[in-house]
Amino acid sequence: MVCSAADVLGALGDRWGTLLMRDLLLGLTRYEDLRRSTGATNATLSDRLRELEANGLVERRRYQTRPDRYEYLPTPRGRDLKLLLTAMVQIGDTWNLADREGPPLRFVDTRTGRRVALALVDAETRELVSAGHVAVEAGCGADAVMRWRLERAAALRKAGSDAGPVSADGDATPRAK
Amino acid sequence: MVCSAADVLGALGDRWGTLLMRDLLLGLTRYEDLRRSTGATNATLSDRLRELEANGLVERRRYQTRPDRYEYLPTPRGRDLKLLLTAMVQIGDTWNLADREGPPLRFVDTRTGRRVALALVDAETRELVSAGHVAVEAGCGADAVMRWRLERAAALRKAGSDAGPVSADGDATPRAK
Repeated sequence: MVCSAADVLGALGDRWGTLLMRDLLLGLTRYEDLRRSTGATNATLSDRLRELEANGLVERRRYQTRPDRYEYLPTPRGRDLKLLLTAMVQIGDTWNLADREGPPLRFVDTRTGRRVALALVDAETRELVSAGHVAVEAGCGADAVMRWRLERAAALRKAGSDAGPVSADGDATPRAK
Repeated sequence: MVCSAADVLGALGDRWGTLLMRDLLLGLTRYEDLRRSTGATNATLSDRLRELEANGLVERRRYQTRPDRYEYLPTPRGRDLKLLLTAMVQIGDTWNLADREGPPLRFVDTRTGRRVALALVDAETRELVSAGHVAVEAGCGADAVMRWRLERAAALRKAGSDAGPVSADGDATPRAK
């Protein structure tokens, strides 16, 4: 599937892989710590660590000999996932499903102690862009399915959600479920 | 588990749930379109749509009678996930695992046509904060495990990764694997 989001999902594997990356990015490195933090079984933990290593997100490094012991560290590619974790935490804090009195984690500017948040900016000028001005379009790496998704969505928007079935590009006309 | 990131993962369910939210946020609304886009089986698709609905991320709405047909729309809570998808796409574009000539999707400012990206800003002043100045700390919603994670990570950082096993809070001392 030609989709950058799907590539990231594939590299993470599943919920366990994502929780492990959260812990590794927080700074946990040892097997027992990861087990305690996630509550995963040994089988799940070993398997997911191997998978994250195979996918280039985690590096295993020996920190002790006789007996050999290893720690797990995020690679540069793994560290890119900080952005994802920050987004997840920010959304989860907004939802506050567990009705907590405040957020479990705070991202702060070490110079001011104030909270930081994710925002959309112009990629070049770094000026803030409000969400209302952001649209998504096909990039030059889009395949036929990605182009179809965007064209179909545009046709649905144009037809209006109450106007009944849309005939967009023929091929894409919905059939009965 | 007291963790906002885990709450979001729980609401999404799995990879299929996340891919469905991607499509719904791009603007696909019809069952057949979602099936074509994700390649999910009918069983998987119906199940995940029901789950996303139960978790308050998706609303099912009738758009036709005789026969009844439904469309699926992201709720306000579901729309919060745009931030997550934007982060995923941005990371996947950076990785470019498939060695594409360019990104499949582009997020653009509709006023300028230029690319937008996620950045960290001061939550109040909205001034840019560089990643190097961002730290994570326990918020007032942190439970004992979250506090332990952060303390343990700080102890590991302090001890340095080559200094052998760390005895942080006793209880947390790693045991042999």
